[in-house]
Amino acid sequence: MTRRITLLTDFGTADGYAAALRGVIAALSPDAIVDDIAHDIPPGDVRAASWTLRRYWDVYPSGTIHLIVVDPGVGTARRGVAARIHGRFLVAPDNGVLTWPLLREDSDAAVVLDRPAMQRLPVAPTFHGRDVFAPAAGRLARGEALEKLGSAASGLRRFHVPAAHRREGAITGEVLHVDRFGNLITNVPAGWLPEAPAEGLAVKVRGTARPGASALTVISGLSRTYGEASEPGRAVAVIGSDDLLEIAVRDGNAAARLGAGQGTGVEVVSVAPDRTGRSR
Amino acid sequence: MTRRITLLTDFGTADGYAAALRGVIAALSPDAIVDDIAHDIPPGDVRAASWTLRRYWDVYPSGTIHLIVVDPGVGTARRGVAARIHGRFLVAPDNGVLTWPLLREDSDAAVVLDRPAMQRLPVAPTFHGRDVFAPAAGRLARGEALEKLGSAASGLRRFHVPAAHRREGAITGEVLHVDRFGNLITNVPAGWLPEAPAEGLAVKVRGTARPGASALTVISGLSRTYGEASEPGRAVAVIGSDDLLEIAVRDGNAAARLGAGQGTGVEVVSVAPDRTGRSR
Amino acid sequence: MTRRITLLTDFGTADGYAAALRGVIAALSPDAIVDDIAHDIPPGDVRAASWTLRRYWDVYPSGTIHLIVVDPGVGTARRGVAARIHGRFLVAPDNGVLTWPLLREDSDAAVVLDRPAMQRLPVAPTFHGRDVFAPAAGRLARGEALEKLGSAASGLRRFHVPAAHRREGAITGEVLHVDRFGNLITNVPAGWLPEAPAEGLAVKVRGTARPGASALTVISGLSRTYGEASEPGRAVAVIGSDDLLEIAVRDGNAAARLGAGQGTGVEVVSVAPDRTGRSR
Repeated sequence: MTRRITLLTDFGTADGYAAALRGVIAALSPDAIVDDIAHDIPPGDVRAASWTLRRYWDVYPSGTIHLIVVDPGVGTARRGVAARIHGRFLVAPDNGVLTWPLLREDSDAAVVLDRPAMQRLPVAPTFHGRDVFAPAAGRLARGEALEKLGSAASGLRRFHVPAAHRREGAITGEVLHVDRFGNLITNVPAGWLPEAPAEGLAVKVRGTARPGASALTVISGLSRTYGEASEPGRAVAVIGSDDLLEIAVRDGNAAARLGAGQGTGVEVVSVAPDRTGRSR
Repeated sequence: MTRRITLLTDFGTADGYAAALRGVIAALSPDAIVDDIAHDIPPGDVRAASWTLRRYWDVYPSGTIHLIVVDPGVGTARRGVAARIHGRFLVAPDNGVLTWPLLREDSDAAVVLDRPAMQRLPVAPTFHGRDVFAPAAGRLARGEALEKLGSAASGLRRFHVPAAHRREGAITGEVLHVDRFGNLITNVPAGWLPEAPAEGLAVKVRGTARPGASALTVISGLSRTYGEASEPGRAVAVIGSDDLLEIAVRDGNAAARLGAGQGTGVEVVSVAPDRTGRSR
Repeated sequence: MTRRITLLTDFGTADGYAAALRGVIAALSPDAIVDDIAHDIPPGDVRAASWTLRRYWDVYPSGTIHLIVVDPGVGTARRGVAARIHGRFLVAPDNGVLTWPLLREDSDAAVVLDRPAMQRLPVAPTFHGRDVFAPAAGRLARGEALEKLGSAASGLRRFHVPAAHRREGAITGEVLHVDRFGNLITNVPAGWLPEAPAEGLAVKVRGTARPGASALTVISGLSRTYGEASEPGRAVAVIGSDDLLEIAVRDGNAAARLGAGQGTGVEVVSVAPDRTGRSR
């Protein structure tokens, strides 16, 4: 049986660490297809890795094995785990990196990777990616049972994800992630918002002050696309592909333009139509 | 039938956008082989992406599916298209990114990706890569016909590529691209130049002035290889692997050394041999 | 017969050079699996590439074809070679990039890639990756014999790797490599060191002076993991996954913190226990 493994790390590529993982997998499961997701997660940034994982883990078909090695506590007491969530396998350190998948659905089954016979020996205390995690993924890829990899595990670790709030028609939230384009992805769910164009609302972003610009940006209405802004350099609010409210700048970088980043406050308020029937 | 898909985007890797495309493809066409070409095209830079595409699209064998998602106008009126050019399939926004392949040969067939039944629904207006383009590529990979993906399209968009000129033995051209090594790739076709060593000509590069250096660099003759310069740091002119005139600096970066970049003017002139029979 | 090819270059991805190599391979050996190791080796840095190669070449199973194109002397007198070392095939310019594999074991067989019939013609003197090396790898992947690719070669080139020394209980060595995490990997073999925790020794790193910090860092004892430092920002010495002494900083970058880099001197000395039985 051939399966697909995806690989997400903070190893970079130039040191050959990610290559060593793939070598281990190739030795255990020669026909496995390995997709490189990213190796440029900021070193040790478990939250960033979990966010990346959010975007693809359930887009891949059932049976896919997602291997995630962002592991600042390698070799310490933190556990290594393999879990089945919504039909996909996830192999990772139990340091919170599985938070986003676990927020969607509990694991069906999970094990601690505690069996030397399933590992590459001797295990280097500084490189469980190569010696513990990659072997587990490679074994799953050749059809070995999850339960064979270790003792049953429960209570997989999750970090706290800040939630948006609604009160008296106003929504307060914050920026969860800034992407490569400088788009600000917030924690405001699409389900709380009307469909675009929603001229009856305003989105306020409270960035930090920049020279010649206010710290507060107010965007009227929702746009359907990034390109709908009236002019280049103008901020727009859209419902992003994550089903979350997103702030972008046409042909530009919203994070830089608005002085915003992870944690920046965002507010969505209703705007009463004036007598001409247009929003103010 | 298994086919190969190549993937060129400006998504970076760390946000998981490129991963989502691969997930969609894996779900539609589990056996497709997906090659990552690059995800570090500068955001929205359609010309840069087309240049990259120029290098590999027809090196891959006939039947390959090239998926290109550099799409600053995502969700706006620009069309999504799939085309067959010289036996290869190209799936991309119709924003000029297919210019270089189209300059070599017209498309045999092209369709607009306008059929919801062929898409991932609901289509996010901000992420056609995942919901429109990747599904089209995945369907081609499992052998579905191009014509099934949408209505016939014509008039695929091309941007203007500046051409070199010849007059009275002199050639004037410009730099089209600076590569990772700092090599300057010009629009002067190899066919206009004699074979190296061509001591009877001089190549002039008009960079911008730098401290302690002239804005004008004059290179005598053509070299066969980068390493043929008389000393490290010396500029050479070669016929590059694109069959275009290329300026390089041995063990160095020509763009930095010569103050040159995209659009920098280049001139090739004949040099009359002096009485000793050597070029001046 | 399907085989796996790995690909290590200094081409970056955005120029499409690496893509051209993969296209050539796909045309010659459509079923070959190609793993991208890294394309971000510093331009022309043969030593860095050889170090990367050290990490994965023998982790991959026997029969794997490792293609390495870091080739500052492309087109000059340096040879292109293909070799079989410890059951793996290595295809590369003969410029020292195979040093680390050759330090482990001599090649069983090696050939010069000197047969036009085995190449992509006409060979561009500036791009042997595409026209000489990738065709050789593609042919090996479809099962053609190494010996068919060219004339027998001997005396493959190796660069000098500085060795650590032991004298009167003290070890002197140096930093060979700084990885993405800022970890300092030295040339001191694990076999010369006791197992962690080794409180009877001290590791001295002679970096360059930094504001507010001494140029000399002294680390007491060996740790088993990066996370064992008493506090974040503290340097630890560990036996790394390469079986070499490694210096790291918990949740930080040892190279920056200690003012150290490739070539920085490292010393390991015994520390006599004091009367309380604890190391000083």
